[in-house]
Amino acid sequence: MIIKLKNNISDLDFKRIENFFIKRGLKLKDASSNEVKLIGVIGDTKSIMESDIMALEGVEHITRIQVPYKKASKVFKPTPTIIDVSGIKIGGDNFVVMAGPCSVESEEQILEVAEACKKAGAQILRGGAFKPRTSPYAFQGLKLEGLDLLLKAKEKTGMPIITEIPSVDLIPRFVKDVDIIQVGARNMQNYQLLKALGEIDKPILLKRGLSATYDEWLMAVEYILAGGNEKVILCERGIRTFESYTRNTLDLQAVLAAKELSHLPVIVDPSHASGRYEMVPQLAKASLAVGADGLIIEVHNNPEFALSDGAQSLKPEKFSILMKELKELAPYFKREIK
Amino acid sequence: MIIKLKNNISDLDFKRIENFFIKRGLKLKDASSNEVKLIGVIGDTKSIMESDIMALEGVEHITRIQVPYKKASKVFKPTPTIIDVSGIKIGGDNFVVMAGPCSVESEEQILEVAEACKKAGAQILRGGAFKPRTSPYAFQGLKLEGLDLLLKAKEKTGMPIITEIPSVDLIPRFVKDVDIIQVGARNMQNYQLLKALGEIDKPILLKRGLSATYDEWLMAVEYILAGGNEKVILCERGIRTFESYTRNTLDLQAVLAAKELSHLPVIVDPSHASGRYEMVPQLAKASLAVGADGLIIEVHNNPEFALSDGAQSLKPEKFSILMKELKELAPYFKREIK
Amino acid sequence: MIIKLKNNISDLDFKRIENFFIKRGLKLKDASSNEVKLIGVIGDTKSIMESDIMALEGVEHITRIQVPYKKASKVFKPTPTIIDVSGIKIGGDNFVVMAGPCSVESEEQILEVAEACKKAGAQILRGGAFKPRTSPYAFQGLKLEGLDLLLKAKEKTGMPIITEIPSVDLIPRFVKDVDIIQVGARNMQNYQLLKALGEIDKPILLKRGLSATYDEWLMAVEYILAGGNEKVILCERGIRTFESYTRNTLDLQAVLAAKELSHLPVIVDPSHASGRYEMVPQLAKASLAVGADGLIIEVHNNPEFALSDGAQSLKPEKFSILMKELKELAPYFKREIK
Amino acid sequence: MIIKLKNNISDLDFKRIENFFIKRGLKLKDASSNEVKLIGVIGDTKSIMESDIMALEGVEHITRIQVPYKKASKVFKPTPTIIDVSGIKIGGDNFVVMAGPCSVESEEQILEVAEACKKAGAQILRGGAFKPRTSPYAFQGLKLEGLDLLLKAKEKTGMPIITEIPSVDLIPRFVKDVDIIQVGARNMQNYQLLKALGEIDKPILLKRGLSATYDEWLMAVEYILAGGNEKVILCERGIRTFESYTRNTLDLQAVLAAKELSHLPVIVDPSHASGRYEMVPQLAKASLAVGADGLIIEVHNNPEFALSDGAQSLKPEKFSILMKELKELAPYFKREIK
Repeated sequence: MIIKLKNNISDLDFKRIENFFIKRGLKLKDASSNEVKLIGVIGDTKSIMESDIMALEGVEHITRIQVPYKKASKVFKPTPTIIDVSGIKIGGDNFVVMAGPCSVESEEQILEVAEACKKAGAQILRGGAFKPRTSPYAFQGLKLEGLDLLLKAKEKTGMPIITEIPSVDLIPRFVKDVDIIQVGARNMQNYQLLKALGEIDKPILLKRGLSATYDEWLMAVEYILAGGNEKVILCERGIRTFESYTRNTLDLQAVLAAKELSHLPVIVDPSHASGRYEMVPQLAKASLAVGADGLIIEVHNNPEFALSDGAQSLKPEKFSILMKELKELAPYFKREIK
Repeated sequence: MIIKLKNNISDLDFKRIENFFIKRGLKLKDASSNEVKLIGVIGDTKSIMESDIMALEGVEHITRIQVPYKKASKVFKPTPTIIDVSGIKIGGDNFVVMAGPCSVESEEQILEVAEACKKAGAQILRGGAFKPRTSPYAFQGLKLEGLDLLLKAKEKTGMPIITEIPSVDLIPRFVKDVDIIQVGARNMQNYQLLKALGEIDKPILLKRGLSATYDEWLMAVEYILAGGNEKVILCERGIRTFESYTRNTLDLQAVLAAKELSHLPVIVDPSHASGRYEMVPQLAKASLAVGADGLIIEVHNNPEFALSDGAQSLKPEKFSILMKELKELAPYFKREIK
Repeated sequence: MIIKLKNNISDLDFKRIENFFIKRGLKLKDASSNEVKLIGVIGDTKSIMESDIMALEGVEHITRIQVPYKKASKVFKPTPTIIDVSGIKIGGDNFVVMAGPCSVESEEQILEVAEACKKAGAQILRGGAFKPRTSPYAFQGLKLEGLDLLLKAKEKTGMPIITEIPSVDLIPRFVKDVDIIQVGARNMQNYQLLKALGEIDKPILLKRGLSATYDEWLMAVEYILAGGNEKVILCERGIRTFESYTRNTLDLQAVLAAKELSHLPVIVDPSHASGRYEMVPQLAKASLAVGADGLIIEVHNNPEFALSDGAQSLKPEKFSILMKELKELAPYFKREIK
Repeated sequence: MIIKLKNNISDLDFKRIENFFIKRGLKLKDASSNEVKLIGVIGDTKSIMESDIMALEGVEHITRIQVPYKKASKVFKPTPTIIDVSGIKIGGDNFVVMAGPCSVESEEQILEVAEACKKAGAQILRGGAFKPRTSPYAFQGLKLEGLDLLLKAKEKTGMPIITEIPSVDLIPRFVKDVDIIQVGARNMQNYQLLKALGEIDKPILLKRGLSATYDEWLMAVEYILAGGNEKVILCERGIRTFESYTRNTLDLQAVLAAKELSHLPVIVDPSHASGRYEMVPQLAKASLAVGADGLIIEVHNNPEFALSDGAQSLKPEKFSILMKELKELAPYFKREIK
């Protein structure tokens, strides 16, 4: 951490700054020139936030030299993390495809979609039981009944399931029944939830927040890892930009950055990113090309009558064609789709 | 709601769209011209989300004509809502000032700051007991101990207290002890929390999310109002922009918009908006000038040694000067600071 | 165009609104329901801007039903435009690669880079002669001398050249010597320049502005097309987001949207998008996968000593490997790299 | 400038970095710790851009310690600049109000509006002759005829005039006839125009670009100052955000920041910021409260029939009330409106 001091800083204020860091077990090193007063702070500064230091009289500007997360960092763990979900590898050579409807709507629907997804080659079944919706008046999911239906689909197809958790109190039930627990974009900084998920032994898929920076995303991961749960899958799902033609804007550089900065697997959600099913196949192929470890895609047998987000769902036939294309393309990128 | 259809829509698809709306008790009205096929949907469309309709084959574009919220809307309740907190009015002629430290740090600190704030003319005491921090390694607040200290300060000064709630499980304790429950920006779309707060009888201060639009903010309010709790105070606290010189960017137009669209009181947090204490006094005066119903300001007796966010805290002397200026200025804007 | 009127609009105001449109040769059609007053405006509304109508007393909201551009639209011209540059096709089956240094720096440099690019398989040579830099004190390009050096490289390699035009007065020189005239992101809404380029017969590559929406981008195109020059190539080069780890954020959905909305070819600039050469190869392959018509890539023989933007330049060896990979991959996407 | 090196940097690469800076007359100072390799660059680094250094093998991250502009900086010139326009002071105690129609439309219109503005207390007349519009099909201003009409209004009322310049070729005419030359937000980084304006002796009002950071804005100023023209007025006019209820989002912190960083006067355009005339009076008062040096406001005698941007124009009666309020309020902020 480098601190630029005001040129007219008083001796007393300098003394105070010195004490501030010494009290926290850190050392200072002078790095000033004739024109600028600079000090370097040496040691582990992760527990100190910039806004706290800015309050010290005489401080003008602070630059963090090291990333603010530790366990999420590639420096801490240089080898890629591969997560095993009932024998399916997430990370490594496997290119995993999770597919299913936005919302679980009925037994018939989820079974039909699950079988179609499985047949096309998806390895993991996705489906929303608890739906966070912008409007309190919109369909909020079948809730626990939806979870039961997902379990039926799992039983019938043998596919592990991933579904979004809405709140801390449901953790015991999700640990028991769900194979990957999804944290939605709006909950990326719900720290109570992240802390609680850090204490369990279950893979977590953490979606990037709508306007989150890479550092904020990895700091949210750090909340989970710090608790002891090391099975985190990152998911890029589009960010908010000024464009309204699409729902969000897919940031494929996020995949590259997350892989440069972290050891965790990264998958892409092209359905929520674009919000337009016509764009999903091409974005899916671009995700494979850029180096993602997999995809999570919305598939619906009857998107016109979906209870949520039909606009971004592929029909099973189109999904099947996409899977065929991905399988052909994968070896080119040294990936395998089983 | 106006729906633009594709020019080449099939009769079957049109029939399906018709059924979709009729099943939901809505009526359709043709509004087409020679060039464009348009239908108007008549009735209460609040429970239908655009993304659901977009999935219907043949739909090209949707325009919502009415706001998606109801109870938060000025159309629903044209008279301004005034919220009473132990005799202090929020809304109406009163210009309320809430002040106190970012975090409660010790008994000595909170008592000293509370008395200074009271003396300067603040009506309500703010102070963080549970601190949501980006880093799991940073100070997370004194938690329940901090709440106890706030109660001591309340007892001693007679000031009602406002503090942020981190999660649903703490609601009973907050209902018992806190006068205004604050929902932080990161929790603006934590729907489980909002729903639970809708079921209690206690004023809620809802901060605008970092990248939230006005509609999203008012939809979050709607979650609380829909549950029956009508005591919501809106708080503009700065949005994320491309600028990094300041922490966030204060959007004073949000105050005007919230008052055009809604009947609820709106206050401003200049401390979090700018993140720089030097800017707070001028932003506070601009907030009064633009028509806000009050302010929430960070004050610290010793900001250099604050455990969080010292950079944006005013010292008691500077806060006292600001209060004097605001009192002089208030009558000009037909406001009163008692 | 659909106009929502205020419910309490006076007869006089309604009359005025009627006249406003009738005077402009447009017709009105009532689309009101019991709850909402709506009128549809029928005819060509392209010359009317929303902000003008909003000024009419009694108007509450306006929705444009048709895109505001005409000649750039796929509706106007459904067949894809293919642009011929000295026999090289931009659009259609050909996947064009333009490559070269950010800035032309010396005869030796440009000749060496040009030959390396040609050898690797690039079809068009890029190179900056006039460099728009944020700082007036930074290197601004070799200017006309740089253009002369580009011509030497063209002569030697036979590659057509593309370079950025800084201002209207240089158009005659550029028409004479340059094969594709590039308009930089910062000039995307420099309307004097766009109008003047509309009057010449030379391909224009129009970069998307840093924060431009798709509509604004296509409206900028419309300025050129409206003048009679129909040879426009769109170029997505990354948009500004909250992320600072990368220079900009590549928006590959822009490629899909531009191809849905327009008939023009679209290429991608992965070098400016990410600003990090390590990311360029993967972004280049993702661009091919998503359906772009080509790439514009920075290549430098000695990026450590580049006079501008070295950080995002590939060395010739790495570029050569990338070209090999793209050539192998192209047929999969029904593209050809000659 | 502080440069973080990769921990595994080779001696050869380090040597190269050293040479890079020594060749440019700069010195290096080691600031490393056990964990991190850091070097400080001492001397004037303004002509070096970060992206150039990032290209050097072995460099991981760069932090600029000093602002990248010089003549615009308060460090360079600590006393506030006051600009004299025919005896009217911009900056200092005077709170200047510039008012007039968005577009000059006819002799009758501009004379009527000018007289109303003057009577209400505006000191400078604004009016667009050349209108940059998003659509090539929208009204583009009366151009030179509009300028002639502005001159008539100046002659009749004695008010100096401000109008926007569209391109370099019109500079001689503007120098002759216009009192303040306005550079529009879209041209903020039109460097050819900025350089040319740096060589004349005439006040320039530089609007902040739609998504420009404070540094980019001040770097654009630097282009003008570097040429020798020191009469620059900054104008905050709203930035693009995710909100579409208003046209743009007014950033009043920009006024405070510009005054902390620079010595130049700063005025606010509440009309373009909000795009809604109902918001203009309150935003105008907030601008005064925050410390702006003045306002530029759209006033139209007949906004319903304005040829551009009527929605954001005040009628003369409302403008007159606003001026009365501002005059009463000004002394409170130690300002004067003559």
